[in-house]
Amino acid sequence: MKIVFLGTSCSNPTVERNLSATAIQFGGKWFLFDCPEGTQRQMMQSGVSYMKVQAIFFSHFHADHFLGFPGLVATMSMHGRDVPLHVFGPKGTEEQVRKSLNLAMMRKDFEIIAKEVRKGKIFEEEKCIVEAFPLKHEVPCTGFVFREKDKPGEFQRKKALELKIPEGPLWSKLQKGQQVKVGSRIFRPEEVMDYSKGRKGKKVSIVMDTLPSETYFEAIMDSDLLVHEAAFLEDQKERAVETKHSTAFQAGEVAQKTNAKKLVLTHLSPRNRDNEKIGEEAKKAFANSVVARDLMEMEL
Amino acid sequence: MKIVFLGTSCSNPTVERNLSATAIQFGGKWFLFDCPEGTQRQMMQSGVSYMKVQAIFFSHFHADHFLGFPGLVATMSMHGRDVPLHVFGPKGTEEQVRKSLNLAMMRKDFEIIAKEVRKGKIFEEEKCIVEAFPLKHEVPCTGFVFREKDKPGEFQRKKALELKIPEGPLWSKLQKGQQVKVGSRIFRPEEVMDYSKGRKGKKVSIVMDTLPSETYFEAIMDSDLLVHEAAFLEDQKERAVETKHSTAFQAGEVAQKTNAKKLVLTHLSPRNRDNEKIGEEAKKAFANSVVARDLMEMEL
Repeated sequence: MKIVFLGTSCSNPTVERNLSATAIQFGGKWFLFDCPEGTQRQMMQSGVSYMKVQAIFFSHFHADHFLGFPGLVATMSMHGRDVPLHVFGPKGTEEQVRKSLNLAMMRKDFEIIAKEVRKGKIFEEEKCIVEAFPLKHEVPCTGFVFREKDKPGEFQRKKALELKIPEGPLWSKLQKGQQVKVGSRIFRPEEVMDYSKGRKGKKVSIVMDTLPSETYFEAIMDSDLLVHEAAFLEDQKERAVETKHSTAFQAGEVAQKTNAKKLVLTHLSPRNRDNEKIGEEAKKAFANSVVARDLMEMEL
Repeated sequence: MKIVFLGTSCSNPTVERNLSATAIQFGGKWFLFDCPEGTQRQMMQSGVSYMKVQAIFFSHFHADHFLGFPGLVATMSMHGRDVPLHVFGPKGTEEQVRKSLNLAMMRKDFEIIAKEVRKGKIFEEEKCIVEAFPLKHEVPCTGFVFREKDKPGEFQRKKALELKIPEGPLWSKLQKGQQVKVGSRIFRPEEVMDYSKGRKGKKVSIVMDTLPSETYFEAIMDSDLLVHEAAFLEDQKERAVETKHSTAFQAGEVAQKTNAKKLVLTHLSPRNRDNEKIGEEAKKAFANSVVARDLMEMEL
């Protein structure tokens, strides 16, 4: 799983930072979290394939989180996209998608399937799940968990070949824990699976605009990577409360309290240009804190 | 007068080029021609002050020409703009402005005065004039002329001081060719103006998406600088006709036939990455042709 920080600013872009968006690559597809103005070009700069975006997850619809959506759709259409695009977000998503597409004179040659979500599992594929949970911002705002499914064990290819089980759907059934029949012989999964090599799927939690709040702690518990907004510094705490945002220190506290393995701070106010200071404040609460830079990549 | 090429691509941005927009600085203000996605950040990168934008002139409302408008308005508001912003463009401008502002959850603390224009003088200040003229594209599309007013002569400050004419409104009247009275003495303009030093104002013509056509030749005649779209190359001429665009050679022909002093080619197709080739084709028709690069600046 690869995570790319396409943009890391809040409110407005700066010379160094575009507005916040995060992309996750998994199983050859890309999953995009927010799509502010300029995101398509950040994708081009970073090598994130805008044609392979499977779904876009919007935290909310403040201007700094979604104005890149109509332009991205226009570019996808111009380059011949014909597979559906899934769009998820809080209440208002369907209307925002409709208004965005109605805004520009542009072609749209593929289906856009918009869905309003609040809590729980919202998307599932063979090997991954996305869950939503509500945040505490000025407007309906959603956090997301991207979770690789647990791997129950390792499939022993060599053993399957020795047992003359033909490659293909039968292997896949065994991997899923089902028994299969070849001729008159029945094979059980444990004959080809090494369950000692099972592994828990990675979990990435993405928490955009919010006051820090225990209400979303359970949803993000034990994240391998927590991406948390950190718009402000401690001496701007009053402003954070006023605008319903978090400070870097508070993001660190959230990571610490929810047992995260790693924290990345993003959605940084243009007025806070000193990355070192932002990182230091977070580290007071949680040691493994990293301040995001635009186009920074991470493997999980 | 300074001209900054904020973006130079058409259809979609690329790693090297943002979508086409051009800014003119004159008298401490900026005048923006088109505002596609990413324009506000290009302004930041180039030092064009988005807070000093007096007016935006939209050629038309295809996605690649105006999707940066709502984001720019959001940023202007966040930074406390309180002076009106003038917006000009073809039929549909008022609706597009309304839809853009209605799209995003954002503040707008200043007035936006939208006006639909077709032909002739559309904007005038003390020292400059903007004129519009229709182009030949798939949808209503407008070209613009930005013209510095002619300077009738040079005001001789030293002479005015010798004659004891008090500095201020009286000087300004004399510069405008009016006589003034100081005590009982009447001064005529020619006493302080050196009319041998008069000079014609500079003329910049901006021609975006269009088939080349004699219908706009008169409007852009004798430009000091002609900024002309050149989406395609000669071997893509069929595509240019189909999509109602110009080739680099055709842009050169327009410059030659309208007696331009200099031609800048912009709005270049992402498939044409060889600047030298684009320039060569234009130069076959007009020697003083330059291919625009993003953030290229020019003084007139």
